[in-house]
Amino acid sequence: MTGTNNERGYIVAIGGAENKLRHPGILRRFVELCGGRDGRIVVIPTASQLKDTGDDYRRLFLDLGAGDVEIESIRSRSDCARTDTLSRFEHADGVFFTGGDQRRLGRLIGPTPLAEFLIDLNAKGLHIAGTSAGAAFLSARMIIGGKGGTMPRAGMVHLTDGLGLLSNVIIDQHFRQRNRFGRLLAALSDHPELLGLGVDEDTAAFIGPRDEFQVEGSGAVTVVDTSQLELGKRASQSESSPLSMIDLKVHILAREASYDLSARCATI
Amino acid sequence: MTGTNNERGYIVAIGGAENKLRHPGILRRFVELCGGRDGRIVVIPTASQLKDTGDDYRRLFLDLGAGDVEIESIRSRSDCARTDTLSRFEHADGVFFTGGDQRRLGRLIGPTPLAEFLIDLNAKGLHIAGTSAGAAFLSARMIIGGKGGTMPRAGMVHLTDGLGLLSNVIIDQHFRQRNRFGRLLAALSDHPELLGLGVDEDTAAFIGPRDEFQVEGSGAVTVVDTSQLELGKRASQSESSPLSMIDLKVHILAREASYDLSARCATI
Repeated sequence: MTGTNNERGYIVAIGGAENKLRHPGILRRFVELCGGRDGRIVVIPTASQLKDTGDDYRRLFLDLGAGDVEIESIRSRSDCARTDTLSRFEHADGVFFTGGDQRRLGRLIGPTPLAEFLIDLNAKGLHIAGTSAGAAFLSARMIIGGKGGTMPRAGMVHLTDGLGLLSNVIIDQHFRQRNRFGRLLAALSDHPELLGLGVDEDTAAFIGPRDEFQVEGSGAVTVVDTSQLELGKRASQSESSPLSMIDLKVHILAREASYDLSARCATI
Repeated sequence: MTGTNNERGYIVAIGGAENKLRHPGILRRFVELCGGRDGRIVVIPTASQLKDTGDDYRRLFLDLGAGDVEIESIRSRSDCARTDTLSRFEHADGVFFTGGDQRRLGRLIGPTPLAEFLIDLNAKGLHIAGTSAGAAFLSARMIIGGKGGTMPRAGMVHLTDGLGLLSNVIIDQHFRQRNRFGRLLAALSDHPELLGLGVDEDTAAFIGPRDEFQVEGSGAVTVVDTSQLELGKRASQSESSPLSMIDLKVHILAREASYDLSARCATI
């Protein structure tokens, strides 16, 4: 694999609906990151229920110049414990989680030997990307459902455990397109220790080995930093009663902007 | 009028669709502010094209205990220059702008002798409230249209001059219900010197004489403070290309929270 300098591999969170034909900048950058002609990418289409999803990405990555692309259809938790499954990731340069339903990823791959192996390989240089459900799955806690809307309401979001590559963030996808600012705030009001990343469609955060990410694509990544947050109490007992949230810091980052996840600092 | 202590009157921005029957807390507080049984309220239904709007509010305010309620249907700019029109506001304790279309308010009342007179009377103690279009109209710059959406896009918002009671804020209404976070940010990206107030339906900011407001009602007031804002350049020439906005400060304020507009400081 390409990452021979003992640095962590990139973690790439794509907001879904990435451009695949005319301007496939995000997918092309991922292929290049994985070494292009010398690179080997494994696609995990487990989130999707459509039978062509894996093949579609395989063809796309080959068209974009990847040397070798394999599909690893994880269909059960026991698949994730089999030595032959794990061995197929051993010499990969990149892993790509497709979109679909992130609950399937949580249920089938959640905390399994494969999940641990991927975290370990990423630490040694394997690049791991996910789009839509695949992006949500990258972090330790992930959003599995909730309503759209500008502002947070109680009960508008549900969380569960993700893959765990990133322990300090929570990622929401299709962010602008599905008006998910409110549900990300609702998630953060329960987990103010996390940093919220709302990734638009056709947009990606390329999180490098030093925990700094650059934005790629046609939309923006919205960062919600609750480190200064002061939370009010609900004015009434009603669950739908709004919650005061004071001192949220928000950054909207378009292409060419970057963000340091450790220092919590944005640069244009 | 009630304001005999030479303090500015309250300025009350209501996000529209305030509860009028079972829990009319916002309208009741306005009536009490205006002196209840001793109070005289003038309703300006100019924003509305519906012929009953003025009468409906008249009945509501009387039911809530107002001593006297009159309707002043401004139908032309020349109405706003007539001495008999102005004289009807001279002994009012409160003025209430109904909802409708804020462009009508801008066009008919905009910078006229009546507008100047109201600003002057407010400075001497007259309370002025507006709901929906009437709330947008209170500030010096007002939003007159734009698309909904969580995140800002170029051209998603159009501004014009408002009444001018508040020179340092811009108010958007039906905020949560119509997903207007994006359009408020778009307005602020052009006017980062202003403070953005997004007022939910059935929610009001009661802005007192010392420029501090309390939140009333069942929703929240979202404050967007761009005083630290750093703006990026558009990554492409395209108008729809997103804009990086760094260091937005956001507060979501529910009932019992308050905010000091001068110090830009929130308290729960």
